[in-house]
Amino acid sequence: MSIVVLGTVALDSVKTPSGTRKHILGGSAVHFAMSARLFVPVNLVAIVGEDFPAKYLNFLQRKGIILSSVLRTAGKTFRWKGEYRGDLNTAITLSTELGVLLTFRPRISEAQRNIKHIFLANLDPDIQSHLLTQIRSPHLVALDSMNYWIAHKRKSLLKLLKKVDIYVANDQEARQLSGESNLIKAARQLYAYGPKMILIKKGEHGVLFYGDKFIFSIPAYPTEKVVDPTGAGDTFAGGFMGYLTKVKRIDEVSLKKAIAYGTVAASFNVQGFGLNKTASLKLQDLETRLKKFRKIIHF
Amino acid sequence: MSIVVLGTVALDSVKTPSGTRKHILGGSAVHFAMSARLFVPVNLVAIVGEDFPAKYLNFLQRKGIILSSVLRTAGKTFRWKGEYRGDLNTAITLSTELGVLLTFRPRISEAQRNIKHIFLANLDPDIQSHLLTQIRSPHLVALDSMNYWIAHKRKSLLKLLKKVDIYVANDQEARQLSGESNLIKAARQLYAYGPKMILIKKGEHGVLFYGDKFIFSIPAYPTEKVVDPTGAGDTFAGGFMGYLTKVKRIDEVSLKKAIAYGTVAASFNVQGFGLNKTASLKLQDLETRLKKFRKIIHF
Repeated sequence: MSIVVLGTVALDSVKTPSGTRKHILGGSAVHFAMSARLFVPVNLVAIVGEDFPAKYLNFLQRKGIILSSVLRTAGKTFRWKGEYRGDLNTAITLSTELGVLLTFRPRISEAQRNIKHIFLANLDPDIQSHLLTQIRSPHLVALDSMNYWIAHKRKSLLKLLKKVDIYVANDQEARQLSGESNLIKAARQLYAYGPKMILIKKGEHGVLFYGDKFIFSIPAYPTEKVVDPTGAGDTFAGGFMGYLTKVKRIDEVSLKKAIAYGTVAASFNVQGFGLNKTASLKLQDLETRLKKFRKIIHF
Repeated sequence: MSIVVLGTVALDSVKTPSGTRKHILGGSAVHFAMSARLFVPVNLVAIVGEDFPAKYLNFLQRKGIILSSVLRTAGKTFRWKGEYRGDLNTAITLSTELGVLLTFRPRISEAQRNIKHIFLANLDPDIQSHLLTQIRSPHLVALDSMNYWIAHKRKSLLKLLKKVDIYVANDQEARQLSGESNLIKAARQLYAYGPKMILIKKGEHGVLFYGDKFIFSIPAYPTEKVVDPTGAGDTFAGGFMGYLTKVKRIDEVSLKKAIAYGTVAASFNVQGFGLNKTASLKLQDLETRLKKFRKIIHF
């Protein structure tokens, strides 16, 4: 079993109370892949520009990520510049340069069209939809989005949600799309839009899962040293989807465990800039932290 | 084993998206007692004015709360008026009339001086200290405070914290008193002030416990219908202290379970105005919800 992730490959410039980094490797699909690769082979579907450093492609390849559907075209790689202050809960976007993303039409190979587990990371819902139509018989499709698309492409997004099994959103996005401030009510409304499972990420406050059969809620793994939260949500999604794909079961037990794996994966991500911590992770590191996590939250 | 709670008995006027209530029974000590009474006898130490309705005293008595150290003096009962909007996470205080609280010097009986488990609910730290000096050999003392005392009586509060086992604070207070925005760092700093255990309440995001031997973190019980969160923190503390007092053990297992009991008690509190839900609670209701809660957060 392997997985397809569609999303951004980015050059991130970030400032946090711990320091500043310029043009480091980032993007939703990259953070997802760096965590999902611990469980299953990951097929990255993305686009980069001519300016994209070869060392980053080599790095991703060394990590075992399948890059055959990463397009490299004329133009500039997507760049994001942001800052975190205070409790580091909210990113302040300073600039976004879409570059080659503007012309992105994802293409995958014949073999990849047969893959059944798909993660549509944050991108224009029309691009997400374009990728999804290429998948022959999707079995588990999760989708992430963001405030911009909720505001500007609401119709496309709602249409796409009907074809999706899991909608992954942060708390602000969940409230924005549903119009409900209480997160359980928000989840119920989002559920009514189509996805059978709703995963609401609350940053340092953890995750709420809402499904037709059960709800599940865990806090974040308590981390004293938050260096850079960029990509934490996608790292979470990577652990979550990676685990589910590996165990080939989607039931209460596996979903809960997948959420726990995603949570500990995200806790490593925030402890370093960019991919500093997740690049060197082994599955054993997740297992060890998962055991600690269970002790921290079980009574 | 029984427990002493020092705090306010108030007449609350509250407006939330669910409606408005005027001059209903409230106050930190009352909310605490309403939840702690499910486990052990509760000795209320507080003051009310001449205007305090006899029906409220009768009500508290019917609930089994020991009122022998509730003073009734000339003057007006403490009144709080507040409003909650949006996600109901933060109370907007519209007015506070201290009334008889201004002259409050708590007095307890000889028998009460031998009680070993004490909860000092939010009050002027000098008054809290005055009560604590009357306890002969305290075994477990927990203290709550608020932003006003942290800002205006910091020295008294810090001095008192050295005599306290558990400091109970909400996340804002923890950050304010410690000067740290990360809650683990905040907890560690608060720990350095004296208390061996720090309990940080995060409202709808649950609780973080920090002790010398372990940390513990659980989300709130997911509640769709939040009617009025007034008193949720004290209801939590009542369940927490009540359980610990009943089981007579302060170890990792009992502390975790006490936090879980406090959490489910608080979830009932927010589902109605004032004491609407907690007044009719039985221990069995907590047990039932505790089982559900375990299913919701364990993996």
